[in-house]
Parts: sequence; C-alpha cells; structure tokens
Amino acid sequence: MQHTFIPTQYFRTIGTHPAALTVNDGDEVAMWCVDAHGIDGNDQTVTPAGNPMSGPIAVNGLVAGDVLAVTITNMHPLRPHGWSYPTLAGNVVDPEYIGAVPYAPGSKLPKEYWDLDTTTGTVQSRGTHGMRVTAPYRPMVGCFGVAPARGEAVSTATSGPHGGNMDVRFFGVGCTVYFPVSVAGGLFFAGDAHFVQGCGEIGGTGVESAMRIDVRLAKAQMERITWPRAEDDDYLYTVGNARPLDQALQHATSEMHRMLIACGADGTSAAVIMSQLIEYHIGNVFDPAYTVVAKIAKSVLRTHGLQSTFR
Amino acid sequence: MQHTFIPTQYFRTIGTHPAALTVNDGDEVAMWCVDAHGIDGNDQTVTPAGNPMSGPIAVNGLVAGDVLAVTITNMHPLRPHGWSYPTLAGNVVDPEYIGAVPYAPGSKLPKEYWDLDTTTGTVQSRGTHGMRVTAPYRPMVGCFGVAPARGEAVSTATSGPHGGNMDVRFFGVGCTVYFPVSVAGGLFFAGDAHFVQGCGEIGGTGVESAMRIDVRLAKAQMERITWPRAEDDDYLYTVGNARPLDQALQHATSEMHRMLIACGADGTSAAVIMSQLIEYHIGNVFDPAYTVVAKIAKSVLRTHGLQSTFR
Amino acid sequence: MQHTFIPTQYFRTIGTHPAALTVNDGDEVAMWCVDAHGIDGNDQTVTPAGNPMSGPIAVNGLVAGDVLAVTITNMHPLRPHGWSYPTLAGNVVDPEYIGAVPYAPGSKLPKEYWDLDTTTGTVQSRGTHGMRVTAPYRPMVGCFGVAPARGEAVSTATSGPHGGNMDVRFFGVGCTVYFPVSVAGGLFFAGDAHFVQGCGEIGGTGVESAMRIDVRLAKAQMERITWPRAEDDDYLYTVGNARPLDQALQHATSEMHRMLIACGADGTSAAVIMSQLIEYHIGNVFDPAYTVVAKIAKSVLRTHGLQSTFR
Amino acid sequence: MQHTFIPTQYFRTIGTHPAALTVNDGDEVAMWCVDAHGIDGNDQTVTPAGNPMSGPIAVNGLVAGDVLAVTITNMHPLRPHGWSYPTLAGNVVDPEYIGAVPYAPGSKLPKEYWDLDTTTGTVQSRGTHGMRVTAPYRPMVGCFGVAPARGEAVSTATSGPHGGNMDVRFFGVGCTVYFPVSVAGGLFFAGDAHFVQGCGEIGGTGVESAMRIDVRLAKAQMERITWPRAEDDDYLYTVGNARPLDQALQHATSEMHRMLIACGADGTSAAVIMSQLIEYHIGNVFDPAYTVVAKIAKSVLRTHGLQSTFR
Repeated sequence: MQHTFIPTQYFRTIGTHPAALTVNDGDEVAMWCVDAHGIDGNDQTVTPAGNPMSGPIAVNGLVAGDVLAVTITNMHPLRPHGWSYPTLAGNVVDPEYIGAVPYAPGSKLPKEYWDLDTTTGTVQSRGTHGMRVTAPYRPMVGCFGVAPARGEAVSTATSGPHGGNMDVRFFGVGCTVYFPVSVAGGLFFAGDAHFVQGCGEIGGTGVESAMRIDVRLAKAQMERITWPRAEDDDYLYTVGNARPLDQALQHATSEMHRMLIACGADGTSAAVIMSQLIEYHIGNVFDPAYTVVAKIAKSVLRTHGLQSTFR
Repeated sequence: MQHTFIPTQYFRTIGTHPAALTVNDGDEVAMWCVDAHGIDGNDQTVTPAGNPMSGPIAVNGLVAGDVLAVTITNMHPLRPHGWSYPTLAGNVVDPEYIGAVPYAPGSKLPKEYWDLDTTTGTVQSRGTHGMRVTAPYRPMVGCFGVAPARGEAVSTATSGPHGGNMDVRFFGVGCTVYFPVSVAGGLFFAGDAHFVQGCGEIGGTGVESAMRIDVRLAKAQMERITWPRAEDDDYLYTVGNARPLDQALQHATSEMHRMLIACGADGTSAAVIMSQLIEYHIGNVFDPAYTVVAKIAKSVLRTHGLQSTFR
Repeated sequence: MQHTFIPTQYFRTIGTHPAALTVNDGDEVAMWCVDAHGIDGNDQTVTPAGNPMSGPIAVNGLVAGDVLAVTITNMHPLRPHGWSYPTLAGNVVDPEYIGAVPYAPGSKLPKEYWDLDTTTGTVQSRGTHGMRVTAPYRPMVGCFGVAPARGEAVSTATSGPHGGNMDVRFFGVGCTVYFPVSVAGGLFFAGDAHFVQGCGEIGGTGVESAMRIDVRLAKAQMERITWPRAEDDDYLYTVGNARPLDQALQHATSEMHRMLIACGADGTSAAVIMSQLIEYHIGNVFDPAYTVVAKIAKSVLRTHGLQSTFR
Repeated sequence: MQHTFIPTQYFRTIGTHPAALTVNDGDEVAMWCVDAHGIDGNDQTVTPAGNPMSGPIAVNGLVAGDVLAVTITNMHPLRPHGWSYPTLAGNVVDPEYIGAVPYAPGSKLPKEYWDLDTTTGTVQSRGTHGMRVTAPYRPMVGCFGVAPARGEAVSTATSGPHGGNMDVRFFGVGCTVYFPVSVAGGLFFAGDAHFVQGCGEIGGTGVESAMRIDVRLAKAQMERITWPRAEDDDYLYTVGNARPLDQALQHATSEMHRMLIACGADGTSAAVIMSQLIEYHIGNVFDPAYTVVAKIAKSVLRTHGLQSTFR
C-alpha cells in the first residue's frame, strides 16, 4: 500500500514519540522532509534547525528484537537548490592548520547555494564563496533511524545503534538499510537529505535541501542485529557509530563478522575473507559520533557459496 | 638508466643508513624484496622478520625539502605463493567481541598459504584454516619511504611523514608516490609486498610474498610537502599516518587542502570542492600508526580548471 | 527548607520528565537512591538495572542558561554492604592482554560483595573472588545531572554536557557541582552511589550500594557554562565527557580556560597558570563517554588575586 | 662510584649510539644537561633545539631483557631561570575554541621567563606575557630512557616503551624509574629538565632550564617489563606512551596488572585492587605520543601482604 506523509510536526530527537502514521509490513511511504535547517520546498523555515525529522512511522507487527528493512525507492527534490557551508570543520584538520581554513570554526558561517540541473544530473554552486563548483547529483538520506532502547530520545545531531545522523553517501535510491528494532512498531524517522555529499561530511554539510523520500518499510528476514546494516545491488554493509573513528570501525568490523556468519561462513573463513576483501568507507567525521561503514562485495559472497542478500 | 638491486643486507628501520645503491634522477631500479618475515623467493629465511627493507637507494641531487617521486612500474612475484594470518587483530573488533575471533590476539598464529594463479589473475587460499578463499591478484607495496629527519631510524612496523608501513591498497603498479625528502639523496627503502590486501590490513597481513618491485625514482616537480602524496591515472591522493584514525585523517585532510591550493585553487574553493567531492580510504588499522588516505578524482580537478597531475 | 524524597518511580534516562518534586532555591533534599542495579536498602530489586535515577526535582525560578549548584551535604548508606565486579573492562587493557583478565569481557560477571565498617571507615571485600581487599569508605555520587537541551533523554549509562554517569571520585560529601540548566526548573536527577571507587571505574563498577544522598539545590552565581564545573574546599574543577579521552580533556581544558577568565584572569595569564599548575583526573574510562576532570587549587587562585569560589 | 658527565655531543634521538661513558652497576653519575632548546647554564645555545640528550651511558653487565633502575638522587639548576610558552597547545582545547587561545597554534611563540627563588622554593614568571605567576619549584626530568629495540633511533620529541619524552611530574628527586633494556649496556640518555610543570604539559613546555641531573644506575631486581615502571616513597607506577590517551591508559593498566602479579597478587585480586584503588595521572598530552601513568599506593600493597618495593 502507498502512503503519503506530510508532517505537521517535526522532531529533533529520535525517540519513542507517538506514531504520526502507522503502516503495514511492506507498505510504501512518500515522506516530505524539510532540510537540516527546517526549511521546506518553498524556502520557508517551518521548524527550528538541527536535522528536524519527519515521523515517526510505526510498522504493524514489529517488536523489539526484530529488524526493520528500509528500502529507499526514490528521492525527489522539493526545491531546485540546496546549500552548504564553504569551510572545513575544525576537527577534520590539524589543530595548527585551523588558521588556514576559510571561516574560523565556531564563527557564523555563510551559506553557499547550489542549483540542481536535472538535464546534466549535476549540482552547481553559485560561486558566492569561492569558485563555481560542479558535483554530480547523488541524493542521499543523511539522518534516519528507529526509536532507541530504554526510552532514550537521541539528538538528531548524532548517531548510535539506532541509526541517526550517519551521513553515509551510499544511503540513496536503491539501498536497503536495516535497523535494530527496540520498541513496538519500530518508529521510523527520516530527514536531512543531501543532493550530494563528500565522504566524511567534512564541511559540516552536504548540499542540503528539502526532499521527498520514498521508502518501503518491511520486517527484515534477519536475526537480531547490533548495528545497522545495509545492502544495494553490489554490496553488503555494516555500520558503526562512535568516536573516535577507531571505535566506530571496531563496531562495523565486529558486525561484519557476525553478518558473514549469518551468511553461512564459519568464524575463521569470515576472518580470512574480511582480511583480504573488506573495504571501509567513512560516513561522517563531523557529528558527535563518527560513522564508519564496512562493506563486502556481493560477488565475493556468491563466489564462496554464501548468502549474499537479505532482500 | 636501468638498475638491478639485489640486497645483501636488509633493514628493519628506515633511517640514514649508508646508501646501498646510488642512481641518477629518473633512473629505474628493479628491487628484489623478501616478504614481511624475511623469506625470499626460494622460501629461505634470509633475514629476521619484521618488514625487512631493501635499500637504501640514494638519488643524486636530491636535498632536504625536495620531493621524491617513486613510480611503481611493475611488480613480479618471486615465488608463486604467499601467506596470511587467518584471524582479525584484537584492535579492530569490539573488546567484548575478541573472544569470538579465531586465534586469540597475542597467541602464536598459524599461517594460511595462498597460491597465485596468473591465468585467472587470482590468489586462492589452500583452506587449511577455514574455507578456500579466492581474491583478485592486486599486488601492492606495503612498506616504503625515505629516511626521516633529525637522524631518526623508524621501525618498519610503523609509519610517519616519511612513509613506512602504510599498507595502502592503491600503492601498486601505475601509482606514483611522493615522499618528503629529509636527507641528501633521499635514501629510499621498499619491501613488504602483498599479492592482495583488504582495506585496513585487519588480520595483520595481506597475502605476503617476496616480490621484485620495479620503480622509477625522480625529483618531483612539487613544492615541499608535509605528508606523502600520490597519484595514479584517476586520482590524486594525500596520506596521513597516526593514531587514532581521527588524527591520521586530520593530517591527510590538511595536506589535501594544501595540495589543492598547489593545484591552483584558492582556500575557500578548495574547501568547497573537498566538502562535496573528497573520498577517504583506510590504509591500515593494524600498525602502531594507522593510515588514512584522502583522494580527489583528477576529472574533478580538470572540470574546475585546476592542475590535475604532478607527473 | 528540608525535603525528603523517596521515589515511587525511577528513570534510566535523564530528560524532560515530569517533576516528581519541586523545591525553592536553596532548599535541601534527602534523596533515597537505589544502586546501579535497581536494588534498594533491603536488598530488593525495585526497578530494572542500569543506573536508575531518583528525580527529577525542579527548582523554582531556574531557566535555561542558568547554572544549578548541587552541594552534596551528606551521604548515608541504606544497607551495610555493596558489590563490585572482580574484573577489568575489556577497553581498559591492551587487546592482546584481554585473555589475561579474570572473567572475559562480554561474559556474565559474578558479584563480589563488600562490607562497610563504619568504625574503621573502610569497606572490605568478602574474598569470594580473589583475596579480601580493604579500601577506604569514600562515598561518592556516580551519576547525576539535569535535563539536557532540545528534548533529549540521555541514557544514564553515559554522560554529556548535562552531567550524567561521570563517576568522578571527588563528587562526594562537601563538593558542589555546577550543571548548565537547559529547561525550566533544571530537573535534577541522582543515583548510582558508590562506597568507594578507583579512578576510571576500570572494572565497570565502584562498590555499588543504595544510599541516601543529601543535596542543597540552588541557583549558582555564575554565568552560563558549557560543561559541568565543581568545587570543594581545595579545588575548582571543570569536567569534559566524551570519547576518546583526548576529546574529554579538550572539553575540560577549554572550560577551565573560560572559568579562569570568569575568575578574573586575562586569557594569556589563564594559559600561563594552567600550563604550570593544572592537574587532571580521570573520572571513568568505562562508559560510552569517558570523563576527564581538570582542577586548579584554590590556593593558586588566591595567590594570584583571582576569585577562588562560586559558593 | 661517582662520575661526572659533561657532554661534548648531544643527541635528538634515543638509539644505539656509541656510549659516551660506561659505568658499573650501582654507580652514580652527575649529568650536565642543556634545556629543551639546547641552551646551557650560561645561556649559550650549544646544540640545536628539540630535547637534546646527554648520554648515552652504558652500564656494564646489562643485557637485553634486563631492567635498568634509574634513581634520581638530585637535581641542580645550572642557571637561575627558565622559560615557558605562554599559550595552550592546539590539541588540548576544542577545535572551535582555538581562536580564543593566546598565540595561535603554529605561529612563532614568545618565551616567558621565570626566575628561581631558592629561599621560597618557588619560580616566578616575569609577567612579560600575562600576569606574574608563582609556582612551586618541583624539578623533574622531562625526557629520559634507554636505547630501543631493533636498532630504532626514536626522536626525543616523542616516547615509547623505551621511555623518552614522557613529561611526568613525579619523575623528580627521590623517584626510581625502571626501563626495559633492549641492547647491551642499556644506553641511558637524559635531558629536558623542568623547574616545574603542570599535568599534561599543555602549553608545550614546563619551565625549561639547564640542570645537572644526578642519577644512580643499577640493574633492577625485576623480571622483564613491557613498559616503564617507577616508584617513590609512596607509590608504585606504570607508564603507557601512545595516542590516543585511551591507548596509553591501556598500556599502563595492563602493565599495572602484570606488576601486581609480580608483587604476589593473583590475577583476580589484582583486578579487584585496581578497580577500587588505582589512580591515573596524565604525563603529557602535547607530544606525538601521550603519556598516562597508573599508580597504586605502597600502603595498599603492604595492607594486603604484597611486595611494595623493587628498591
């Protein structure tokens, strides 16, 4: 079944808030989302800044211990432009190099606007701050996830086992992301869409815009997970959210070992495969918790007779 | 000019040791290298384990402040097999997950052998520990660099501004790596070749083998650099070596900003480009210093009218 | 005015929950608190484990931007024994040393019980796990703080700018802790008392017991603060909560510089004083966020003509 | 036997350099040391800056695997003044607070001079940069250690298992520091003395001066150690040198567990004692490797019937 979800209220925490919409297992929802500053498709600020979320959406039948599969089926811009900060964050450069970065960390930052050109599939900065820059249009969801355990309501500035502000470039159209369910119905939130973003979100922003995010929400055929996982046509992914990056990587690596065992490998084989064939990706190094993604090509799993999809 | 360099002595530090060979700017050298355990192409242990280096090779005319360009022109296996450890390192998984990893960290580890199949371009583990695993043959140089400043002699277990044990998968045939020269002649060392390696070298090894590494050594047309840089056909790279990963990333990001300015960008434009178009790669998370690589596609630089090569 | 507060409900998050008690500025409250596992003074489990909090207590007149001064006037044991885990946490030892630690990280841990001897002022372990160990009775509050901003409800397993599970040994009788107020009334929570604790809470516990914690709650005469501060007879303190320790230390150090300026120092003098006279203390290295405390002796401040108390 | 050692050559690496003096087990040496900038007691720059070391001193009979006990018997100022930088290092404050620190990180720093007043036992800054500041005269050795293994020559800017630039305030008169010997004779170096220093050396300096450091060098009655240890009248210490602080703490904590077992505790009892009675101290958070010290009071060990000294 198809649902349309246009929020009347936004949340800056992901927590056990009352469901704004309840759907059945496998339903699709078109979610209207404002940008990270609460600005909508008409350039109106409709809610305070700080990654306001659309949601929560409950899925009938989900209980704690289940896994929610969120497939991003489509993303539509609600306005033809986005914005970014023309700087690098203080924490991504050497302390003694901070003075060389444009716009000092902690100062009021100007916005650089970018225009979407759907004919070329690119976004182009207006050049107000620095030169005109062209980047591919690769829309992605910066912040999404499900209500965490023990009644926490976690700021959408950060991330955790429940997902949240992970800012992973791969989390775009065609990707299925798996979240560990902690409360009945799961309670799914989404927002903070980007037209494009570099690895690490090192300027503190992607190209931020209001978008409609179309998702299919279903109970995954997957045993209890500890950290988010994902898949697209080519890869299986696991996600770790923490600081420092070293710990985020430990989470993602442990979860990958668990996932390969779930795919049919014994523990030693999983280690051998990972040693020579794993790849890592840095989601963000800007938020309070950083994000590291581990990935293994599905072709590797198929070659070795292992399960290669959970879809 | 072409040189053949078959060492009679190996070094487990990169430092200001007497040059074993002196060449001219632009010369090529075929360097015979033992594997990480000092085992040669005939399966003979000829020197103690711990990434023994072939070298040092001095390049006439190089002085401190120059940059040495090392182009890997070819890599030849000196034996048709390699080995790896069938485990995951203790520091790459969650502390409470260490008990689930095969072969406890700190214990004596068995070796899993892998055979090279040049017809298919793959390496295949023998399945002594876990299942038979097939991986692509993608030879790379694990440890190489130049003598560091102030008379240091740095263990080849680790890395620093001078290069060293970086274990970056991209550093294979066709790649040019740039090292900051600290002493007259540069004093170049290389070894620790891998048939293949996953990101992070998370088991503590790639598929380790003795190889002939062919390099062209030349003075780069590049101003003084702080950290190693590199390029291949598609990308420009900068490297940071440190722990935690957060600091390695700070080094690589600062160096990328400096490099883009050297390519003709102003500081603000460099930040805007990096924010939306940078990619990160994790070299290793096993050695005392971890390695993070930042990269920008050359096509991005060309699109924006910037210099895109230093070759 | 004196209040007695015996909770009928406990919270495992610190957030904007309805006030269970409202007091006036300067009032004193005797708070009954269960131990970290929700066990009360009669050895009854009355609420689920995980640092259940007593509270929240609202203070009339407090508004966001104010600072709440919490003076611990007394602590009374509600039972004559406590417990600890007889191990070291996996994250506080080298990964390759984890195998040498008693009771593997991640396994079910036994409890070692300790008896309080008020005549000698000591606690003594029963020797069920290892030898009988004697430690001084130095009661302290492990977890306390105020509702955080933006509607967050933060797990009492961790800490942040709002306080939380900091596990600082100095936070005992006679100490005043200052928390940044984010919501009307402040909403103060406390619990997780320890009879004694080593630095770092490296086994994951102090000697955990149910205690009555007596506090005086007042609006501090202090400008807006970013991180908790504290004082006792001898020292002024600032607190940083984050991972890794490096970041927690950055928070505490920045806050100390701000506090010394509030005490009357110019920025350069504050730096000179801190460089030669600061001391650091590690609160915990067990929780998701670690805690570092910076301290400066009040005598140092007096010597230099600076304000040395906010009481 | 008493030796006087006035260097004619200084080293900025700790490595296997030719012994400048050879002594017998138990001998005492009065070592003349320049300050961190190579400036001597007559305010003459006699060698380049960067923690130049006096040494190396070989001790007859020491072999790899032994432990060298260095007892600091006395420290004499070679001039009545020292200097410090009137700033905070960029890496010890929040990135967004760096702009608030006097003298931007990476800029040329002025020196603040301090005068020693032996009648009051204090040092006093001249107030050229900021106010006049008074601190106690507590001389300590910033950088000392022995030649590391595998032929490394490690910069005196940093530290490791061999010791080096640890900047621990406790390492003053009356303290015995234990170093793991890696080469015949041990090869001991010392320098970088401070009149006083705050925890962490957060401005990048203590009060730096040229000093005569008197040491007794002896083979310790101690089994092979992994990291430096120390003792004074009141405490036993273990040291970890690494980044981030988290890893330095892991080293120091693992070494403390090993040391308590060497003192006669079983592994579980050692964990119980450490959990409730360990204290941590931060040596420096300025150098490439940070330093964390773990300590246990000797009185604790005596109370529990454990060995409490290795002197």
